[in-house]
Amino acid sequence: MVGNTGSPPGREFLYDANLLKELDWSSVKDFTKPSISNVQPGEDWLLVRPLKIEDYDHGFLKLLSQLTKVGSVTKEEFIRQFYAMKSAGGYYVTVIEDTRDHSIIGSSTLITEFKFIHECSLRARLEDVVVNNTYRGKQLGKLIVLTVSLLAKRLGCYKMSLDCKDNLIPFYKSIGYRMEPGNANSMTIRYDETPPATAPS
Amino acid sequence: MVGNTGSPPGREFLYDANLLKELDWSSVKDFTKPSISNVQPGEDWLLVRPLKIEDYDHGFLKLLSQLTKVGSVTKEEFIRQFYAMKSAGGYYVTVIEDTRDHSIIGSSTLITEFKFIHECSLRARLEDVVVNNTYRGKQLGKLIVLTVSLLAKRLGCYKMSLDCKDNLIPFYKSIGYRMEPGNANSMTIRYDETPPATAPS
Repeated sequence: MVGNTGSPPGREFLYDANLLKELDWSSVKDFTKPSISNVQPGEDWLLVRPLKIEDYDHGFLKLLSQLTKVGSVTKEEFIRQFYAMKSAGGYYVTVIEDTRDHSIIGSSTLITEFKFIHECSLRARLEDVVVNNTYRGKQLGKLIVLTVSLLAKRLGCYKMSLDCKDNLIPFYKSIGYRMEPGNANSMTIRYDETPPATAPS
Repeated sequence: MVGNTGSPPGREFLYDANLLKELDWSSVKDFTKPSISNVQPGEDWLLVRPLKIEDYDHGFLKLLSQLTKVGSVTKEEFIRQFYAMKSAGGYYVTVIEDTRDHSIIGSSTLITEFKFIHECSLRARLEDVVVNNTYRGKQLGKLIVLTVSLLAKRLGCYKMSLDCKDNLIPFYKSIGYRMEPGNANSMTIRYDETPPATAPS
């Protein structure tokens, strides 16, 4: 079994929660008003931490379904995927918990990739950002994205990238992301759709 | 030691070479003229296969340096990263070898990611595509990208994405990739540069 030594079964985190301590929020302090951080998120009932298996029972997948199709996922399937991520390493699914009822109200995922380029470095990707849309005005989007962005920096990643829809560009610009001139395109093939019958002209 | 059972030390592939057999080239046959595939790449001295450690000595990193900064990477560092990828799983670095002198003349990387969304599915990314620019006219770019794209499909990925520069959009369109309307933006933070002094307006 893969797990943190000493954690009771089923109460372990996807990754070492100590990695979220002492992130360098000074570098992004101008991006939130009032200033917040993962350890001082603005309300005493907000908790930023790694994903754990119990989150299945506290609305984690329902939250993700605000973002895209999740479909039917049993707890067994969830646990299997949780351990697949934990075993592979490089998966930093990070959530915001409302500690009053333990519900999961925000989530974002940092994924790190081993590279040969840049002197065998580490590259970061931001994925699956979602905040419960009933908690507006608390900067939870900035909170959850900046937390994993600072984690990527701490892990030594040389860059962090994300793909996003047009309407989210201003949000990500407001927290330091940018579109590099001539190099800001995301392209896709979907295998769950019927492919085109002929080559595009 | 992580390795394919029975392989002599140092001669193993990054991933199971059998995965490259019987890819479904019929679905993309209109994308190349004349039609090629990873098993019939158009010249008998072209070989498409997974990366192996020996490729360090046959120009793999020099090839990558046509793409971006690679820097100084010792063979020990290369081997360490090779096994880090192999141990984590999900890294499908695929190369084209000129078997006449064993030089590596093309490379692309498929990376798969475990997701909770889409019923705990697998998502694919295309990274670090490069072809030796002295081998023009042999469709090697299409060969190496289509190989890993079909591999992603075979592995059951629901979609495959890539980030690219403006001038490469027509190339990727010609082999089935598309920019989804309103959802084709790639944004980045670089941690190897000086951050902005204040928040962007």
